[in-house]
Amino acid sequence: MADFSLDERLARDTTLLMQLGLCQLRLMHDSRWPWVLLVPQRDGISEIFELTPLDQTMLTFETAITAKAVKQATGCNKINVGALGNQVRQFHLHIIARNETDPAWPGPVWGHGKAVPWEADAQTNFTNRLLEAL
Amino acid sequence: MADFSLDERLARDTTLLMQLGLCQLRLMHDSRWPWVLLVPQRDGISEIFELTPLDQTMLTFETAITAKAVKQATGCNKINVGALGNQVRQFHLHIIARNETDPAWPGPVWGHGKAVPWEADAQTNFTNRLLEAL
Repeated sequence: MADFSLDERLARDTTLLMQLGLCQLRLMHDSRWPWVLLVPQRDGISEIFELTPLDQTMLTFETAITAKAVKQATGCNKINVGALGNQVRQFHLHIIARNETDPAWPGPVWGHGKAVPWEADAQTNFTNRLLEAL
Repeated sequence: MADFSLDERLARDTTLLMQLGLCQLRLMHDSRWPWVLLVPQRDGISEIFELTPLDQTMLTFETAITAKAVKQATGCNKINVGALGNQVRQFHLHIIARNETDPAWPGPVWGHGKAVPWEADAQTNFTNRLLEAL
């Protein structure tokens, strides 16, 4: 992991919650929908097939446990998972709690309106519930 | 696989290209960006963590080989991968070839404008290149 460095836009837009085996689990600075990122701690990866088979398997395991924890922590209607990378090429996977009442439903959240920062209490509350569910 | 049945909207919007070990590989009826789906042949699954660990691993393997083949067949700038399911709950994973010149770049394709059906020659051409790359 020694030579992994996080993309500066990802660093600016997110906060580290915890280190998993392969990935950093990071919270997006947008409270409209609970939204976390998994960022494999590998340099030079922009597509899933550039990860080694072992890393792909680790990513899948970490995706499943994180998605399940986000579902448990929020009771949301649906989890959205996506790896786009059109703007930030460092590979990162989005895991987002979606509800039929959220402002982008049923469309995707990416590019929808402007981020609304978390209030401190709500952020602490969601983070604690998520980490407990993990 | 005997009791798998494909969601009727997925059936209407896509064409079967081939059967992989776990998933059906299906072509979306939208030529604006080469776009395929992987649909695990399992009933009652809407979230990735509802698949067994073995199926999750199979899905990852099939995602990686399909994404790599779509990249090779198109020479696109970026692959987008996503599992949303806000409208169709049967689990399905999108794999999409994106280019800086495409009409939704750098935003997501979901919900963007109207699908443009493939012309027969272009569809055959893309399908052949994709299946060769697999």
